[in-house]
Amino acid sequence: MERNLQDVVVLDLTKVLAGPYCGMLLSDMGAKVIKIEVPERGDDSRAYGPFQNGESIYYAGLNRGKLGMTLNLKTKEGQEIFKDLVKKADIVIENYRPGTMEKFDLGYDKLKEINPKIIYGSISGYGHTGPYSQRAGYDIVGQAMGGLMSTTGWADSKPTRTGTPMGDVLGGLNLAIGVLSALHRQRMTGKGEKVDVALVDSVVSAMQNINMIYTSEGRIPERIGNRYESTYPYDSFEASDGDVIIAAANDGLYCRFCKLIGREDLITDQRFATIQGRLDNNVALKEEIEKWSVNHTIDEISDLLNENGIPSCPINTVDRIVKDKQIAGARNMFPKQEHPVAGEIVLTNNAIKYTETTSEPHKPAPLLGEHNDYIFTELLGYTDEDVNTFKEKKVI
Amino acid sequence: MERNLQDVVVLDLTKVLAGPYCGMLLSDMGAKVIKIEVPERGDDSRAYGPFQNGESIYYAGLNRGKLGMTLNLKTKEGQEIFKDLVKKADIVIENYRPGTMEKFDLGYDKLKEINPKIIYGSISGYGHTGPYSQRAGYDIVGQAMGGLMSTTGWADSKPTRTGTPMGDVLGGLNLAIGVLSALHRQRMTGKGEKVDVALVDSVVSAMQNINMIYTSEGRIPERIGNRYESTYPYDSFEASDGDVIIAAANDGLYCRFCKLIGREDLITDQRFATIQGRLDNNVALKEEIEKWSVNHTIDEISDLLNENGIPSCPINTVDRIVKDKQIAGARNMFPKQEHPVAGEIVLTNNAIKYTETTSEPHKPAPLLGEHNDYIFTELLGYTDEDVNTFKEKKVI
Repeated sequence: MERNLQDVVVLDLTKVLAGPYCGMLLSDMGAKVIKIEVPERGDDSRAYGPFQNGESIYYAGLNRGKLGMTLNLKTKEGQEIFKDLVKKADIVIENYRPGTMEKFDLGYDKLKEINPKIIYGSISGYGHTGPYSQRAGYDIVGQAMGGLMSTTGWADSKPTRTGTPMGDVLGGLNLAIGVLSALHRQRMTGKGEKVDVALVDSVVSAMQNINMIYTSEGRIPERIGNRYESTYPYDSFEASDGDVIIAAANDGLYCRFCKLIGREDLITDQRFATIQGRLDNNVALKEEIEKWSVNHTIDEISDLLNENGIPSCPINTVDRIVKDKQIAGARNMFPKQEHPVAGEIVLTNNAIKYTETTSEPHKPAPLLGEHNDYIFTELLGYTDEDVNTFKEKKVI
Repeated sequence: MERNLQDVVVLDLTKVLAGPYCGMLLSDMGAKVIKIEVPERGDDSRAYGPFQNGESIYYAGLNRGKLGMTLNLKTKEGQEIFKDLVKKADIVIENYRPGTMEKFDLGYDKLKEINPKIIYGSISGYGHTGPYSQRAGYDIVGQAMGGLMSTTGWADSKPTRTGTPMGDVLGGLNLAIGVLSALHRQRMTGKGEKVDVALVDSVVSAMQNINMIYTSEGRIPERIGNRYESTYPYDSFEASDGDVIIAAANDGLYCRFCKLIGREDLITDQRFATIQGRLDNNVALKEEIEKWSVNHTIDEISDLLNENGIPSCPINTVDRIVKDKQIAGARNMFPKQEHPVAGEIVLTNNAIKYTETTSEPHKPAPLLGEHNDYIFTELLGYTDEDVNTFKEKKVI
């Protein structure tokens, strides 16, 4: 089946999570993504668990569908080979410390001389400009510097990191948007450009609706557990067998909810008459709602509310999600894939579903240097002898 | 200055956060985004605080740069006007409950008859397919159903929502990627398609590196506070004046860190000799590190470690972020904008920085129906009399 980006060539120099997540999305959507790794060792994440038959599932998920080649960019020959590749590519993505590509003489200014259409996408902790640009940044740095940690958690808890490396994921998504938007201009005008995405900025941008509380009201947003700054009831509530989400976020839903639980009095109660009132009196309202919810199971509550159009759901653990008839079933979020070494593995799918094209994962992640022969001889036109020399010199 | 998407026309039917965030990004990158709102009331978020001079800052941030028009899609005339607009557009985005656009006779199948190039981007709680597709989903539902809440928080805390509506932001980012990827194919082939993004799927995709712990090892990921499943030390640590982030994520950084704090013994200590050992013994290692960190301030630690190439930073609150010389200064993440009613407002910028084009926010968000005259007379060619009739009939 057709894929949206099947005429697009991407050179993926990134490693670990943020950059590879971007390359993974482009690959799922059909781009020819050539993953370029250091000889012998490869992407650091090849050493990260979990493992199946010695193969990293961390690597296998984030690099599915890519072609794999090795190249030592510290050698002169490696740099020349990379420049040859740039002539045939639309997009380069990299997540080195700012300045590293310039040390290889492969910075954007050099690459655009070789191919004026090239789109150069970088992802880094703090970005390629400014006083902190040389600092190393990991996901947790993005979450902490960008304000996500200080606002996540309970009023009596310390600042809290999210359960997944959200700074990296946000960075990867923003880089994908950045290069796709630049690709549009490239195909319209023939011109390339550099895209500079920082993990910290990506978190800050995701905090927009929280930042405005300070920039407009002057109040510093704090940790408030599971409730939301903008409306109530919109929180977790105690059920007889755990916690359940109820999100009766507007007046209509709130009235319907109160009737459904036989508490019309909560509609007319002056404390709860408006969204602002419900926010101001959220502790009292939660107590009233839990008088009802503790007597019902999570599933009873979720089923009843959803039948009546009120958003409600369980707080899923991963074991439930991978079996869920909507998420795993209808939405195919956990496709299986046969990997030549790892055997059958379970991938987490991307979230973008099309009607006329497919964005489902296709080929497995490459073994280290798996496509060297194809890339060097077929794509770049080197002889077998050249390739052997490159191997001897540890260029590839 | 040039913008990447300046030849792209987007009809934005979305409201509140997830969809508008997508439209906001497209507008920042230069697309002509026409925000279509119900007459009289407009987007629900016009009623959400904070307010300046009675104008919603919530709305003003997420809808900056868009043109604003009113249109009642429940009327026959409104539907016909919308079809006229579709003939002139590249992309439609909407976040109605699945099936609503079909009730208006404006579903994708109808719109592609009118304009085969149209890209139809939808965002919903659970997606347009499957047994839960008719359920309403808010951000908190995405976070709970998708597994983010069950894995965020402390071992002794309840499942925890992130401080920002992360499910909505992830959905908006995925929709932007989805429509931009489809736009590439549209310009190459002249064909459009429908993009179907769910909040729940967007969270599930962001959980990839956590999901694999269960899908590969069979272990259900739990809440583990600020540390990370994949490496250690990578956590918050107690300083003399609060908590500080230290991320010595690989062997090289760990050795350098131990030397820097005068604890070479921690390098040779068998418990901490490998990443897996440091993960297994994270409680003991945290204790050892905090013997040092409690005697220094957050800034002392962050400065010392960054000078030595080890990622470290404070846990910023929003008041610090908006003044930070990197984030607010060099990266311009909080540009000011003059709004005709609200006065001077502070926006949160997007995270995508270009060298050859700009993606900085430009015009303010529209007042309700502000560009009706331009759109109806100049763009669609209606007469002033037509417009008056539409107003009388409450079509606009």
